Amino acid sequence: LKGLGLYDGKIVDLNKPAVLLEDRGYQFGDGVYDAWKVVDGKHFLRKEHLDRLERSCRLLDIKPCYSREEIEGFSDSLVEESGVNDGAMYLQWTRGWESPRSHVFNENLRPLLSGSIIPIPPLPLDAWTTGNKVITYPDQRHLFCHIKTLNLLGSIMAKNAAHRNDCEEALLVREHQGRSIVTECSSSNCFAVKDGVMYTAPLGNLILPGITRAAILGLAGQCEINVVEEYVSPEFFKEADEAFFTNAIAIRPIVMIDGRPVGSGNVGPVFQKLNAKYQKMMRGN
Amino acid sequence: LKGLGLYDGKIVDLNKPAVLLEDRGYQFGDGVYDAWKVVDGKHFLRKEHLDRLERSCRLLDIKPCYSREEIEGFSDSLVEESGVNDGAMYLQWTRGWESPRSHVFNENLRPLLSGSIIPIPPLPLDAWTTGNKVITYPDQRHLFCHIKTLNLLGSIMAKNAAHRNDCEEALLVREHQGRSIVTECSSSNCFAVKDGVMYTAPLGNLILPGITRAAILGLAGQCEINVVEEYVSPEFFKEADEAFFTNAIAIRPIVMIDGRPVGSGNVGPVFQKLNAKYQKMMRGN
Repeated sequence: LKGLGLYDGKIVDLNKPAVLLEDRGYQFGDGVYDAWKVVDGKHFLRKEHLDRLERSCRLLDIKPCYSREEIEGFSDSLVEESGVNDGAMYLQWTRGWESPRSHVFNENLRPLLSGSIIPIPPLPLDAWTTGNKVITYPDQRHLFCHIKTLNLLGSIMAKNAAHRNDCEEALLVREHQGRSIVTECSSSNCFAVKDGVMYTAPLGNLILPGITRAAILGLAGQCEINVVEEYVSPEFFKEADEAFFTNAIAIRPIVMIDGRPVGSGNVGPVFQKLNAKYQKMMRGN
Repeated sequence: LKGLGLYDGKIVDLNKPAVLLEDRGYQFGDGVYDAWKVVDGKHFLRKEHLDRLERSCRLLDIKPCYSREEIEGFSDSLVEESGVNDGAMYLQWTRGWESPRSHVFNENLRPLLSGSIIPIPPLPLDAWTTGNKVITYPDQRHLFCHIKTLNLLGSIMAKNAAHRNDCEEALLVREHQGRSIVTECSSSNCFAVKDGVMYTAPLGNLILPGITRAAILGLAGQCEINVVEEYVSPEFFKEADEAFFTNAIAIRPIVMIDGRPVGSGNVGPVFQKLNAKYQKMMRGN
């Protein structure tokens, strides 16, 4: 099974040129995206992801030229025509094509929708039992982290620093109002658990409002786990009993930060409980 | 006369698809660029711009796959084959194509060079005599403004806010170490003149090291104008005797900030003196 692309309303081969040089996505990163998981051929939380995609467009004055129904149709076609049963669905709006290149954009540009479906290989059997290592890394990103934009260099540089250090993710640390805070990871939200209470950064312009983050907060409520949405320091994460990160593709326990174990160094009970519920939810039962 | 494109070492039609969906430039803004002016068929300060393009690549671990001589050759071809005598030359490296899309990049990707030459219409006759209006606007950009990256959303949103307010540029204001400072404009460096002394933000990660900025500082030296490279506040700009902004395509006087005149409200003598020298320099005499 191979991936399949979408460009401007048509299913396309991912390996053939589709994009014009002066697409503002290519020269300015002038666009937004969203991504969700296809599980057993079904779109998981598609409505929530499409809501967020519309919100991202609105916040950057990009006016989608397809209806919600049309976009759902494109994503259905990607599943059907690719035959991918378990995969990652990706959709992206750029502000459109405009020549000659100019920082100033015409307010009436027709935006361009592109996307893909890519099969996801089965998870390694130990994904939730051995845990992941992370590093701390400076959050050098812009001040619109609440919008899912294509301006991802700050995230990429952090993620690759993590991988060079044999770690899966980077806890991003920002100087904010006179103190060091953990915002989120390079492509996920993150949580710390201390004395049975779960901590995560509050919504605002410094983190993405994760769909999985919201789902996990909902499940925490069902489990009667107290949640505090406040910024905490990197030291707080390092001294926590447990930590984990979540995005639309995976939720993962953190067992080591900057080479030192978190809590016992094993996957903790709060993660295990939430993960069990989340996996059930994803399979629709 | 029309523009002409460049993609992966070949001259291409700007109006034909050239780019793959999974070019990292299109999905992450994962790349850098530079641009210079072609004046009377000659490249103006090309060496300096190509030096900076190499530096931008180095700072993001992008390893160009063409030599300096090859890249000079591509830009020569763009001039020759387009017949454009006065234009803007644009070159862009993205980290390359990688499938499936992933924040983590392979360190051995072959980067992709693209670009264009676009004719520049003659300047309006009053470009240097009537002056420009600007607004102040929050600097929401990332912390690697010293690298000329494709992550330009912070700049675009500022520039468009300026145009919606019938202004040419935005003075970007950042909260930095407990105070408000002007860093630069959305696509230019900026200068304030007070009591015969010229002020501009120092090099560092908050501004682009402008090639024109450096040229203007050199000309100021020739004119025995004292220069202070320090951050100043937006209030300082508003109370200055003169202000102006510079980039590779234009240098322009500022006569109004947020609807209030700067100094006399007319184009000042320091700008006039520097501009006269700069125009001579650009024409090679």
